[in-house]
Amino acid sequence: MVEVERNLRMVAGDGETSYAKNSRLQEKAMLEVKPMLAKAITEVCMALISGPTSTMVIADLGCSSGPNAVLFVASVVRVVEEHCKSLLGCHEPLELLFFLNDLPKNDFNNLFRSLEQIKNMVDIHHPCNYGGETIVTPPYYVAGLPGSFYTRLFPCHSVHFFHSSYCLMWLSQLPEELDIKSTTHLNEGNIYITRTTAPSVVKMYQQQFQKDLSLFLKLRSEELSPGGQMLLTLLGRKNRDALHGNLNHVYGLLGQAMQSLVAEGIVDKEKLYSFNLPIYGPSIDEVATIVRQSGLFNIGHIQLFESNWDPYDDSEGDHVVDSIQSGVNVARSLRAVMEPLFASHFGEQILDELFKRYACNVAKHLEKEKTKYSVIVMLLNSKG
Amino acid sequence: MVEVERNLRMVAGDGETSYAKNSRLQEKAMLEVKPMLAKAITEVCMALISGPTSTMVIADLGCSSGPNAVLFVASVVRVVEEHCKSLLGCHEPLELLFFLNDLPKNDFNNLFRSLEQIKNMVDIHHPCNYGGETIVTPPYYVAGLPGSFYTRLFPCHSVHFFHSSYCLMWLSQLPEELDIKSTTHLNEGNIYITRTTAPSVVKMYQQQFQKDLSLFLKLRSEELSPGGQMLLTLLGRKNRDALHGNLNHVYGLLGQAMQSLVAEGIVDKEKLYSFNLPIYGPSIDEVATIVRQSGLFNIGHIQLFESNWDPYDDSEGDHVVDSIQSGVNVARSLRAVMEPLFASHFGEQILDELFKRYACNVAKHLEKEKTKYSVIVMLLNSKG
Repeated sequence: MVEVERNLRMVAGDGETSYAKNSRLQEKAMLEVKPMLAKAITEVCMALISGPTSTMVIADLGCSSGPNAVLFVASVVRVVEEHCKSLLGCHEPLELLFFLNDLPKNDFNNLFRSLEQIKNMVDIHHPCNYGGETIVTPPYYVAGLPGSFYTRLFPCHSVHFFHSSYCLMWLSQLPEELDIKSTTHLNEGNIYITRTTAPSVVKMYQQQFQKDLSLFLKLRSEELSPGGQMLLTLLGRKNRDALHGNLNHVYGLLGQAMQSLVAEGIVDKEKLYSFNLPIYGPSIDEVATIVRQSGLFNIGHIQLFESNWDPYDDSEGDHVVDSIQSGVNVARSLRAVMEPLFASHFGEQILDELFKRYACNVAKHLEKEKTKYSVIVMLLNSKG
Repeated sequence: MVEVERNLRMVAGDGETSYAKNSRLQEKAMLEVKPMLAKAITEVCMALISGPTSTMVIADLGCSSGPNAVLFVASVVRVVEEHCKSLLGCHEPLELLFFLNDLPKNDFNNLFRSLEQIKNMVDIHHPCNYGGETIVTPPYYVAGLPGSFYTRLFPCHSVHFFHSSYCLMWLSQLPEELDIKSTTHLNEGNIYITRTTAPSVVKMYQQQFQKDLSLFLKLRSEELSPGGQMLLTLLGRKNRDALHGNLNHVYGLLGQAMQSLVAEGIVDKEKLYSFNLPIYGPSIDEVATIVRQSGLFNIGHIQLFESNWDPYDDSEGDHVVDSIQSGVNVARSLRAVMEPLFASHFGEQILDELFKRYACNVAKHLEKEKTKYSVIVMLLNSKG
């Protein structure tokens, strides 16, 4: 059984295999959506001016402990500094209260110790005197909030802006039937949907995603204040057909690495057959349908963009320059995310070998085809 | 130089020498002030009913990572459950938002993992059906907030109740002159005020405390919402004369243990002479004067109570039953608080020997005299 809340967390600390040192993929997505973030924060600022409060409450859901959480806070502070100053003219100075949320086993200690960097990031980008006019950094306060975003996290109508990046493809749990019947080999030793996955299993994944995203929307709509907004970025797929999703390759090759360990007797077959990833990469249509069916939010914007598997490959074309190195980079980036989940089920001793084989599989695959991640980003406005 | 923000933290984790396992002294103080807590929270509830908000924001300043932070949250939840329900009759249900604050190096990971216990504590004390009437636990949310309480931590007027227990005797820094001139042996190898401390050094400590508490009051008055309250518990002294404070014995005997290590060449003399504790135990008069001079708060209540050195000695009399065991208990309880500070200045290798000698010194002292801690508790109401 895969216990998500207990075993899902990014690799802690700031060592070589840590998430903090291996989260460039997630950073690139944040840079991609930065203009949307700026637009949304500016709109929320404007909505606040007409209200009685002078504190903007901002929550990052699934923040992890890496530099991206710090980057998010610094980005919002800078937007308020730049774009909202003129709007606020004679209004009381705006204060920002951030909540950085993740599951209780996240490395909050490392996160809190890195918050000092926010100051430097804000200062570096904005000299005090800006075009002859003095820029005043809005006072900001940063708290950590442990808990699953599939539960209520905040008092009613207390948050003005929700942000979540690279998290909502994580399910609250494995589809129940798949979890209970995992010993009956419903997914044939695969760890995620692949081309050999039965349609009934695909449906289980889809229904769990629908249930989870609907719950997420309901909870956030209770917590969001009127006029509030949400910017959500998650891994998805380009193709309508879930059997041909973009994540199939990523986890398919990891599944093959696991299967080779089973074939050599290093991992018990039953262990592999009772393991499925609690993750689902939806299509843009699936996501939009769930949002519309909830009736709780207007979709201000929704789009899909692509991101190279190798976080350090910033090229645009369809050619992979160094597939061996890219294989290693992809493996590192995935290990920083998946390690605790795999370690709790298969034991720590297999990890080095598993991700070494995975790196080879990825390299071989990239030689044939430069596959990419598909990332869905959407901006939702509260209907309330 | 003693860098408070970098080196002051309770011992992390939940091992044998951790603060979590050695904080019964602090727990006893919380039980002592529980009736005052209940009274204050009830009053804050009443004040909230007439306002526009239905969320009570509560902050525990200097929460550390032990069970006491959890005990505090559970206590407040129960008070609201018991006392405030009748007051809230037709009002919107009250929600509680807690901020647990400590310095960034506090073990927040351990704290967050222990929050699950709150639920059990609330449930154990209150069956669902209470005198024929169903008791509904108010929804509560718990965040961690890293930072020094000698800086601004919250937006203006955003907190309804501040709590701080066993923290405000810690200074923001050593008195500057004492820190800079520490190599000139201003305090003669003592680590705190003792009978041989020069009056000029005593004055430095007093002025630093005055400066720090005044700053604390100013900052909190900016953050406290109208009608808000603060319950502050800190170590102090019974005697008016700072040379005869209750903490002199506690740290005097620790200083003697250090001096014996110097005498045997285990610790360098200069190391000891450049070390003073950034702590001060004030008299009730000193505290009351600073609060009155600030002009920011009314003193709703102020009192001093005593607590046996040995956290596990619950006896009332003046006799110590087992001074050897009490010595060990006192040493453990102090080590859980002081270890990181001593380790950063003297190195970890001396700790076992230091606290062994300290335990002996305490045992010998307790044979002659059952000395006690003096604890000051006060309830402050915002004047604003």
